[in-house]
Amino acid sequence: MIQTEVLIIGAGPVGLFTVFEAGLLKLHCHLIDALPIPGGQLSEIYPKKPIYDIPGFPEILAGDLVDNLLQQIEPFKPTYTLGERAETIQKDEEGQYVVTTNLGTVHRAPVVFIAGGLGSFEPRKPPIEALADFENKGVHYFVRDPDLFINQEIVISGGGDSALDWANYFAEKELSPAVTLVHRRNNFRGHRDSVQKMYDLQDAGKINVVTNAEVVDVKGTNVLDTVVIKHKSGEMEEQYTDVWLPLFGLSPKLGPIGDWGLEIEKNAIKVDPADYSTNMPGIYAVGDVNTYPGKLKLILCGFHESTLALQSAFNIINPDKKYTMKYTTVNGIQGFDDKENDEKEEKNLSLNGHNKVH
Amino acid sequence: MIQTEVLIIGAGPVGLFTVFEAGLLKLHCHLIDALPIPGGQLSEIYPKKPIYDIPGFPEILAGDLVDNLLQQIEPFKPTYTLGERAETIQKDEEGQYVVTTNLGTVHRAPVVFIAGGLGSFEPRKPPIEALADFENKGVHYFVRDPDLFINQEIVISGGGDSALDWANYFAEKELSPAVTLVHRRNNFRGHRDSVQKMYDLQDAGKINVVTNAEVVDVKGTNVLDTVVIKHKSGEMEEQYTDVWLPLFGLSPKLGPIGDWGLEIEKNAIKVDPADYSTNMPGIYAVGDVNTYPGKLKLILCGFHESTLALQSAFNIINPDKKYTMKYTTVNGIQGFDDKENDEKEEKNLSLNGHNKVH
Repeated sequence: MIQTEVLIIGAGPVGLFTVFEAGLLKLHCHLIDALPIPGGQLSEIYPKKPIYDIPGFPEILAGDLVDNLLQQIEPFKPTYTLGERAETIQKDEEGQYVVTTNLGTVHRAPVVFIAGGLGSFEPRKPPIEALADFENKGVHYFVRDPDLFINQEIVISGGGDSALDWANYFAEKELSPAVTLVHRRNNFRGHRDSVQKMYDLQDAGKINVVTNAEVVDVKGTNVLDTVVIKHKSGEMEEQYTDVWLPLFGLSPKLGPIGDWGLEIEKNAIKVDPADYSTNMPGIYAVGDVNTYPGKLKLILCGFHESTLALQSAFNIINPDKKYTMKYTTVNGIQGFDDKENDEKEEKNLSLNGHNKVH
Repeated sequence: MIQTEVLIIGAGPVGLFTVFEAGLLKLHCHLIDALPIPGGQLSEIYPKKPIYDIPGFPEILAGDLVDNLLQQIEPFKPTYTLGERAETIQKDEEGQYVVTTNLGTVHRAPVVFIAGGLGSFEPRKPPIEALADFENKGVHYFVRDPDLFINQEIVISGGGDSALDWANYFAEKELSPAVTLVHRRNNFRGHRDSVQKMYDLQDAGKINVVTNAEVVDVKGTNVLDTVVIKHKSGEMEEQYTDVWLPLFGLSPKLGPIGDWGLEIEKNAIKVDPADYSTNMPGIYAVGDVNTYPGKLKLILCGFHESTLALQSAFNIINPDKKYTMKYTTVNGIQGFDDKENDEKEEKNLSLNGHNKVH
């Protein structure tokens, strides 16, 4: 069993920054995420996309923001359960929450932060009956590890950035003997740079772009070997392929958390805007997963929500302690060293801020 | 008269970021600040200090954060009244606020954002009767432009970072024939690096460090020429100097804003935490200057407060409009071009966010 002080469900940007603010309060964190790497959507969906609305960054790639956050929280030595989904929650006799994943890993903490973003990532699947038979046998909704597809023939469907980015990736690096991009329309929704690159690769004979067409069936013996492409003209075409990647985006889904007894409104968790607490004492919801009057689904709002919520959580974990403000500017960051696992150690409880006159 | 849509009082980090979020809503901003440059405390007090608690920056110098914010808001072409203090406010017959500075510059806007930080910067002055006679005649509480002191003999008092940083600055660059640092105690409160540097400069004979002593009097004909130093031992000493910089920090002071009819609590402006509005409709207070239950004086909280408050302000400025969410990731930032000053132009009202599945 993994015991921690703050159990964070969701290792996206807000979950990661929660570790930092908890660390300033000398609280240890453990994160659970269904994805195999930290960063949430930023790592999984658009690591190479620029973000413009993080304060202080005129432009930053989503993946770089994740890297920065990981570096920022490094002194506080967070631990992770990755590639597993938080499934069930129970309160034990000591009032601590016990959270178990789909793979049976058990976690225990007095405080749970749900930083689940838009929920678990449910890919939008095309309505093809045989599809389920070929999932992970040639059909993949995500490209978690592109190395798995090297030297295979690849068909990608979709007109957005995921489809474009991956088509460009395999074609540009010549990792596949045949890259085909199939899109229902003639114009692409992706980032202008990506569309241009795709056309350049098409001109160079590296991508076969098929527009006004869609994949309507999949075939194979055990594993995928053929996709059936229907053109707008009505013409049908069979194409051999090792891999089909239908990249039609994701639809938000709260997942098992929706059944935990939390008050839900419009697929989000209702919180008290005073401290972002849920209706279950000790459980907080921060970032895109929560809702309250005036809520904006912006990363910068999640940063604030976590910071404030931790003040409230601190009182649950340390009902008898007071913290005193200290300033990071003067003192820097004091991370956790490895000795500090002794839970009985007297804690130096300080909230490090910096924006005061020194 | 300067007409704008959002008049921001205070050009610190939160005031600056307000321009960005307002820009995404296609609202034009004008900023007033008593300091001669944007950035507030970050520029004035600790530009070379590292900050550790801005999300996504494991460490950033305060001055660099200001530079980044200025670059981030550049597309939205903010305008400034710098070096003037907002003194009075009145509501005109059309319901717009008219704000006049101490130098008589008049501004008008339907919405006012007070992002005044800890208020105007009031230096802590030592209790020396003759002090007022030499202010700006050798005695300076800030180092706004260090070039003004080049080749002059300098005495600096204080034990904190400002005193250390400036003493080190003039000594290291050999800009002054004599740098003396006078401190009441024997140990310094400043950043460890700065203290070490100061001792190194002392060893190199570049700073004269006088501890357990304080300046108790100033003398001169018209301009300062002498400080009287009293040692803990009781010994008195007169020292010739061109400049004395008593750098004892700042005491927060709300200033004239305190008399505008805003509800004040503990030297801060009370706001409704739902939208950070004050008791005066159309006036918002964001960042360190405001207070509400659970308030934390952190820059990252100010960023969130501004963002949410602007949603409310938007409805005041455009009572009949709706905005639709767009994502900066897909569309990038569309700044204001110079044509766009036509107030009658149909506005494309969009809130650009990015953290949604595309």
